[in-house]
Parts: sequence; structure tokens; C-alpha cells
Amino acid sequence: MKKIDGGITAPEGFKSAGVACGIKESNKKDIALIYSENGAEAAAVFTKNKVQAAPVIQSRKNIKNRKAKAIIINSGNANACTGKQGLIDARKMCDMTAKKLMIDPEEVLVASTGIIGKALEMDKIEKGIYKLISNLDYNGKSAAEAILTTDTCTKEIAFAFYLPEQDIKIKVGAMAKGSGMIHPDMATMLAFITTDLSISGALLQQALKEAVNISFNRISVDGDQSTNDSVFLMANGQAGNKKIIEKNRDYQAFVKVLKKIATYLAKTIIADGEGATKFITIKVKEAESKENAEAIARKVANSNLVKTACFGQDPNWGRILAAIGSSGVDVDPDRITVKINGYILYENGLPLSGEKHDNLMEDRNLEIAIILHNGNENIEFWTSDLSYEYIEINAEYHT
Amino acid sequence: MKKIDGGITAPEGFKSAGVACGIKESNKKDIALIYSENGAEAAAVFTKNKVQAAPVIQSRKNIKNRKAKAIIINSGNANACTGKQGLIDARKMCDMTAKKLMIDPEEVLVASTGIIGKALEMDKIEKGIYKLISNLDYNGKSAAEAILTTDTCTKEIAFAFYLPEQDIKIKVGAMAKGSGMIHPDMATMLAFITTDLSISGALLQQALKEAVNISFNRISVDGDQSTNDSVFLMANGQAGNKKIIEKNRDYQAFVKVLKKIATYLAKTIIADGEGATKFITIKVKEAESKENAEAIARKVANSNLVKTACFGQDPNWGRILAAIGSSGVDVDPDRITVKINGYILYENGLPLSGEKHDNLMEDRNLEIAIILHNGNENIEFWTSDLSYEYIEINAEYHT
Repeated sequence: MKKIDGGITAPEGFKSAGVACGIKESNKKDIALIYSENGAEAAAVFTKNKVQAAPVIQSRKNIKNRKAKAIIINSGNANACTGKQGLIDARKMCDMTAKKLMIDPEEVLVASTGIIGKALEMDKIEKGIYKLISNLDYNGKSAAEAILTTDTCTKEIAFAFYLPEQDIKIKVGAMAKGSGMIHPDMATMLAFITTDLSISGALLQQALKEAVNISFNRISVDGDQSTNDSVFLMANGQAGNKKIIEKNRDYQAFVKVLKKIATYLAKTIIADGEGATKFITIKVKEAESKENAEAIARKVANSNLVKTACFGQDPNWGRILAAIGSSGVDVDPDRITVKINGYILYENGLPLSGEKHDNLMEDRNLEIAIILHNGNENIEFWTSDLSYEYIEINAEYHT
Repeated sequence: MKKIDGGITAPEGFKSAGVACGIKESNKKDIALIYSENGAEAAAVFTKNKVQAAPVIQSRKNIKNRKAKAIIINSGNANACTGKQGLIDARKMCDMTAKKLMIDPEEVLVASTGIIGKALEMDKIEKGIYKLISNLDYNGKSAAEAILTTDTCTKEIAFAFYLPEQDIKIKVGAMAKGSGMIHPDMATMLAFITTDLSISGALLQQALKEAVNISFNRISVDGDQSTNDSVFLMANGQAGNKKIIEKNRDYQAFVKVLKKIATYLAKTIIADGEGATKFITIKVKEAESKENAEAIARKVANSNLVKTACFGQDPNWGRILAAIGSSGVDVDPDRITVKINGYILYENGLPLSGEKHDNLMEDRNLEIAIILHNGNENIEFWTSDLSYEYIEINAEYHT
């Protein structure tokens, strides 16, 4: 596999656009469109939050047949907790996009990110959609800009790889937005992945789930979960390969690229986390099961005491151990090894005493390794620290 | 029931003492003893953390027969993550106390709070125990002081009530320590309750569980769970009532007082939470079950986004709704009402628009009410906000 230039428009047959339609007061780009003229198999994973935004409800409905030609996305307003009007507006976004593209409304998916509880200004949306269609091109940059809220940078990536069984070149592109938790009601993570691979809709959904489980589901800024989180994947078959309909080597090769892309985007979201001064990789090793490893990693990642210790550059293994112990996983503390940046801090039931490690946590990148000596499963999880700026961003900015 | 003066020594037959033995560098009191010469039925509830401190392991063992005469407690050192030596030291604390009191080592319970991962200085402990025994008296104040770590005040209370079936006066006293999460490895909550009631050990344990479930299990500062949390209850029968051996009206009257005392102590711990600028009561009403109500309250209480909004005095109902939705409880957002300090912010799927409520959250005491309109169960939960001082306390102080 090889990294290539571009994002969502890198694969054959995908166009996109991003423009400003006035939802954001800053006049920054705030509406984007992804379009595959030839139609595509489509897959998606949505937030598990029971409070789901209108666009999530609408997209769930439209993706049931596993087909899509377009995704319309706005930033600046999440269209969440907006009641019946919100549902009407989300559907209208699909209808208006479909009408202008002369396709079926069910072929359009929709995503929103931004403030909660405020009705969409549909006149602006309509003008935006009109403008988007005349701006569609093969450069994904403007769409990648238009989906951002408080992100400090665009998040794009693309890879090319050859199917091992068919020796055909496939391209996969992607863009994402999100800082894990954000300003002031915008706790949304969105990602859009495109590919010119030909693959059945059912396998596409499975591939996406496999990739999401080890990437977007393994990041956390503060444990809060958005009403709008969505990951979309479109496969339009324009590469011309024989359609993948079973989990053969070609499928595995695709999943491998997908995991790489999803992990890259997930880590980029954490690195851009607001208030973050540290990028923390938590490795849980030698666990009995991946589920146990993940439960432990998640608890450590979400511990405010661990996060503040990272911010304070304090190698506080006691807080890490206490978090491990409260994960619900049956662990034997005497068998756990805790390392920070490769340095053993706790082993055999005892802290490593007598040595100083004052500069151990100075770098922006930290690695907390937890070795359970209990099995063969290893996982990685990514998170950020808890800083004064986190408080400032989330307390000082009023709705 | 009537509030009376004193704490753990208010009931008949309980003595206590608290002295300094040099564990704390500040030379503040750091070791305490509770003693009931006549012996007592004993009950306890311990942390669910899988990483359990040595005194928790030792007390679990000694309380199996539901009897105790003494509890020895030190502050300044948690004797947690101290390996085999820690277990030896915890047992030694019981042995030394028993020897000096001329009782059986199994009649002594032990609790510790303070720094993690550091061996106890047993010579200091031994001197402390010696000093404690010559200081035993009927004033609980010094013991209430000696169990504190970074608490800013002692936490004591006592009540007297009459058994409805026997018309005999019963006294119940208590002391506690804890700020929910604390400086730098001391995330411990300890509580000790005494009574002169005569009651079977099995019922005493059930009564304690009932009280803990709606008090100490309904507070949270940051969702982190200690390795040392313990609640002890001793009943020495010195009031002279006929022993309670069934769940009659006398039992219910006792549980009522116990709940009042445990709730008072739990709320006092939250009010003394470090960095806290708000005392937040979360009421979940009209839920299908108490379990659902508690899961929702816990998620809202532990949401950093809700906590920072409270610190920033921002009536951010969107964050509250998102937290409710991610609690795992099946809720219909369109039926939920969210109020802050009695003011409806969200109802019927829509925010209350058009009104300003700038000063709604100025008070130190905040009440978040979540009405699910889904059943008849109501619960209360207590938490604090997330402030700059929380970060300062937990990031700036190094181990």
C-alpha cells in the first residue's frame, strides 16, 4: 500500500465541494458535498447515544438499502435536539440535494455538526447546496475544510494498493473532523471514506465495522459521547475490479488499508484535541481477551486523575493502577507491569523505588504500557490529557 | 429522630482517640482508634476496585464472623500497592492493637488512607497505638481529626431515636473523611458508624448496604474509584434493647436513621471536594427503575462537559441530554424534561427558547432535575464541578 495525494476525491469517480453558506457567523466554509455519479455501495457506523441527531436518524433510514450517490454535510449547526422540525429539515437537506443532482432522495446521506438545539436555517442550506453543485470538482480540500468546527487543521488522507488476487489498483480516500470534545456543544466526530473498489454492500459494512472498532472506537478525549458521531464509507466500483463478495485475500487487503486510514484519522482527531498538551498512546498487552484489554484502556484513558497527571508530567503509576482496578476486569495487581515511555514504574506488586525519572514525561507523545501477563491479546488506545485549557474552552464559552 | 452532639462516641460504650505519630510530615494527627469494650456486631462495605489496599484485604478477613471490638485507622499512608509487606503490616496493625487492648487480633478492623505505594513506618504506628490507648475517651473529635488527609474540615454527626416497638432510646454516631478525589494519590473515602443498638450481624450488614446504596454509592467527584474506600458499622447493644433479629418496625426505624447519617456524610464529602465551586444535586425522576435512574445520574455526574458547564455557570442542557443518551438506558429524548434550579430548559424535544436565564447558576448549590416521564422511581445523586483548581491540585503536585 502507498500513501497518495488527496482525500475523498483520490479514488476514481468521486467529486466533492465545500463552500460557505452563512451558517457560521465567521463566514468560513460550512457546507460540503461528496458525489459519486455512478452510485456506490454504502456503509455507515453511527453514535450509540440514545439521543440521536436528526441527520443520524435520516441517514440510518436512507442507508438501509446499502446504496448512496451523495453525502451532504453541514457544520456550525448539529441539527440535534431540534424536535420534529429537525427531522423535517434533515429530510429536506436530502430532498434538495437529490433534486439538484437529479437523483433519488434515498440516494443521499446527511451529516451535521455544530451547536445543539438550534433550528437549521434552511434558506441558507438551500443556497449552499446550489453553490456546492456548481463547485463540484476532483479536489477534496474545500470539502475537508467545510466540515470543520473548532478543529485547527483539516484531516485528509488517501492510499493506493493492489488487490492481491486480481492485481488491480484500488484507491481509498478519507476526510474527518472532530477534536473528541469540543466548543461548547459540539462534541462531534465525523469521518467520510471513499473507494473505487467494487465490493458487496454487506461486506463493505463488515469491513467498516472492523476498521472502526480498532480506530474511532479506541479514542477518547473525555468519555463524553456525541449525538452526531458518524462514519460513512462509499465504494463506487470505478476501479473495475471483479466485485468482492467473500472474505478472500482481496477483502483482507482492503480491510488492512481501511484500518490504516481509520487509525490515522482517529489519531489525528486526538492530536487536535482542544486543550491537549499530550498525545497519549495506551498499550494494553498480554490480556486474556481484546474486550478486557479495551475495557482497561478505556478506563485509564477516561480517568481524570491519570489525565491530569499526564498534564502535570507526573509518572503517577498509582492512579493508573487504581483505574485498571476499577475497569470491571478481573485483574491480579501483583502480576501487572506498568511502564511509561518504556520505563518500568510498577512490577511484581511493588513500585520501582530508589530511582528518579524527572524528565520522563516531558515529550508531547507519551506511551503508557500496561502488561497484564495474562494472555496473548494486545491493543492500542489513544487519548489526550486534561489541562487548564480544557476547562477554559468548556467553561468560559457560554451558549 | 433527633440530632445530638458528638460523633462516633455518642452511642453508649464507645471510646475513641486520635493522635499524631509522625506519619504525616506536618505533625498533624494521623492515627485513630475506635473501641467498644463490650464487643459489637460489625458490618462493612468495601471498594469494588480490583486493586485493593492491604487494610481492605485484612479487614475483609477479620469481619467474616461479623464481630469486632476495635478499629485502628491511620492517615497519610494508604498501605496500597505495597505488595506482601503491606499485608504483613496491615495484619501487624491489628495484632499490635489487639495486644495492647488485650483482645483477639480478629476483633480488630483496620483502615488506611493517604499516599499509595509507600511502605508503612511500623515503628511510628506502634508508638501511635500505644499513645492512642492511653488517650481513649468519650470525645470523638480527635479521632475525626486524625482520619483526615486533605479534607478542610472534620465530618461528624450523631442522632438519637426511639425504637417504635420497644420504646428504647438508641444512639447512632459517625465520622468520615474524603473529598471524593484527592491530592495526589489519595482518592479515599472512609466512614465509621457506631450504634448502641442490639441487632444481629446479618441484619446489621443488610442495614448498612441499604444505607450505603443511596448515599456513598450516589456521590462522585470524577468517577475515579479508590483502592481503600471502606464504610464500617459497629453495633454494641449497650442501649439494652431486645436484639433485633427480623425486619420489623424497629429495624426500619434504624435503617431510616442510618440512611440519614450516611447521606449527610456523603454530601459533606462532596461539599468538601477539592477544587469544587459548586455542590450539584442531580434528581432523576419518574424513571422505570431505580437502576436506570442511577445509571443516568451517574453518567451526568461524571460528564466532564456537564461539570465544566456548571463551573462556568452555563445552563447547557445539550450536554446534559447527550450524557443522558450515552448512559446505556433506553430513553426517548422527546419525553425528557431538563430543569436547572427549577427552570425548564428542555421539554417535548425542544429547548425553551426566547428567554434569558443569565443568573440561573450563580449559587453554590445547583439542582439538575431530569424528568423521564417513564415510571415512578426517583433518586438523588450528588457531585461537584470541574474547575481550574481541580487541575491544579491533581497536576501540579508531584509524587
